[in-house]
Amino acid sequence: MSWQVDVLTLFPEMFPGFLGMSLAGRALKEQSWTLKTHALRNYGLGRHLAVDDTPFGGGAGMVIRPDVLDTALNDTLSDDERPVLYLSPRGRLLQQSDVVRFASGKGIYLICGRYEGVDERFLENRQIEEVSIGDYVLSGGEPAALVLMDSCIRLLPGVMGSDQSADEESFSNGLLEYPHYTKPAIWNDHAVPDVLLSGHHAAIAKWRQDQAEIITRQRRPDLWHAYQNRLHIENDHSHLDSDATCQGKA
Amino acid sequence: MSWQVDVLTLFPEMFPGFLGMSLAGRALKEQSWTLKTHALRNYGLGRHLAVDDTPFGGGAGMVIRPDVLDTALNDTLSDDERPVLYLSPRGRLLQQSDVVRFASGKGIYLICGRYEGVDERFLENRQIEEVSIGDYVLSGGEPAALVLMDSCIRLLPGVMGSDQSADEESFSNGLLEYPHYTKPAIWNDHAVPDVLLSGHHAAIAKWRQDQAEIITRQRRPDLWHAYQNRLHIENDHSHLDSDATCQGKA
Repeated sequence: MSWQVDVLTLFPEMFPGFLGMSLAGRALKEQSWTLKTHALRNYGLGRHLAVDDTPFGGGAGMVIRPDVLDTALNDTLSDDERPVLYLSPRGRLLQQSDVVRFASGKGIYLICGRYEGVDERFLENRQIEEVSIGDYVLSGGEPAALVLMDSCIRLLPGVMGSDQSADEESFSNGLLEYPHYTKPAIWNDHAVPDVLLSGHHAAIAKWRQDQAEIITRQRRPDLWHAYQNRLHIENDHSHLDSDATCQGKA
Repeated sequence: MSWQVDVLTLFPEMFPGFLGMSLAGRALKEQSWTLKTHALRNYGLGRHLAVDDTPFGGGAGMVIRPDVLDTALNDTLSDDERPVLYLSPRGRLLQQSDVVRFASGKGIYLICGRYEGVDERFLENRQIEEVSIGDYVLSGGEPAALVLMDSCIRLLPGVMGSDQSADEESFSNGLLEYPHYTKPAIWNDHAVPDVLLSGHHAAIAKWRQDQAEIITRQRRPDLWHAYQNRLHIENDHSHLDSDATCQGKA
């Protein structure tokens, strides 16, 4: 069973887009993941296959109808083992831990809105998880869906070249990643940090950890505080554990 | 002069991607914005046109060389009026206010990394702005570049149908957007909130503001606190202003 994405969209031609190229594209050909697009327009009403209408209460733009979405989603759902996600700036902010969770499951259903969005009753009634990829507004859900898919697909077994790559990247331990250096060792009078040329694995690992902490503290105080809180909790737990062990052995 | 994007990438074929379709695609054809892709591979070294090498200090993956990037960027820059941005999860988190700033300028230069990233000396030496679209890891800078471009392009003059749409959306006033409703007025026993059918414009505006505040407070305490802080500062300023006016008239 490959990891499956079903996308409900007004623009099925936007998929797979860049995910049909490079590593994700090869993985698609090898069926490490599969893609089904479902054209929302096919569920439109009347002679013009209308999917949207003007907002109650007035205002600019159009809103996608709840009845159209409901019928389309019913027709799209083929199992209940994958989360149904609606991409929206009003959603919970996507984190790497969500990506890991989605990638380790059987796949995802993605609903892409356009215009002013979708009727709120549909989201409430179907208890759909709203996910945001960041605090900015896009032309529609499609660019966000492609980004969410990309983040998951690279984690599927066999897609990336090396399993090690995902363990030492940003967010994998709650920190931003340490800086990278490659050849030439001296470029425009700028030398690579000495320690990286030392061959001392432990010293290199310590330098990288220190750098990751410094960069996170400087650039993302929010992540840094969360990281410190987690460390404190883990330390507390390990104290409890060792106490328990001592008692067990007493 | 149209809004110009120059993209430095190993995958020029990923652009314009979905930005060649729908409203952004029409705007591209009408030259509301222009796109130039620059293939990093063209600046590769040696017989194999190598752009990357192994990281100093060891570890998985490859790092893009600083000399290759430097030559490529020099060849790509045609003016110094546009910011040069490197898409990276280690960057500052993109906000809608950045998008508005980028869209109101002459355009942007985007550098897309792949593999483990780019040599740190290049970023430091060229003082390049690192921007992240969110706290998750992607296959490369290209998906992030497309999202950043999408967020900017929709704000360019004439791209969206109505100018009003951008004023009442998420983040425009620091809040998530209020919920939307459209026909049918009763769907599966779920009625649209009465006030939206009342025709009382002031009551509708108040309801929408209240809803935006409630949703922001529930879903995004971080945005809610920032919104309240800003309100307090503005209120303080308006007190000072009215004091000043009183004194002037005294």
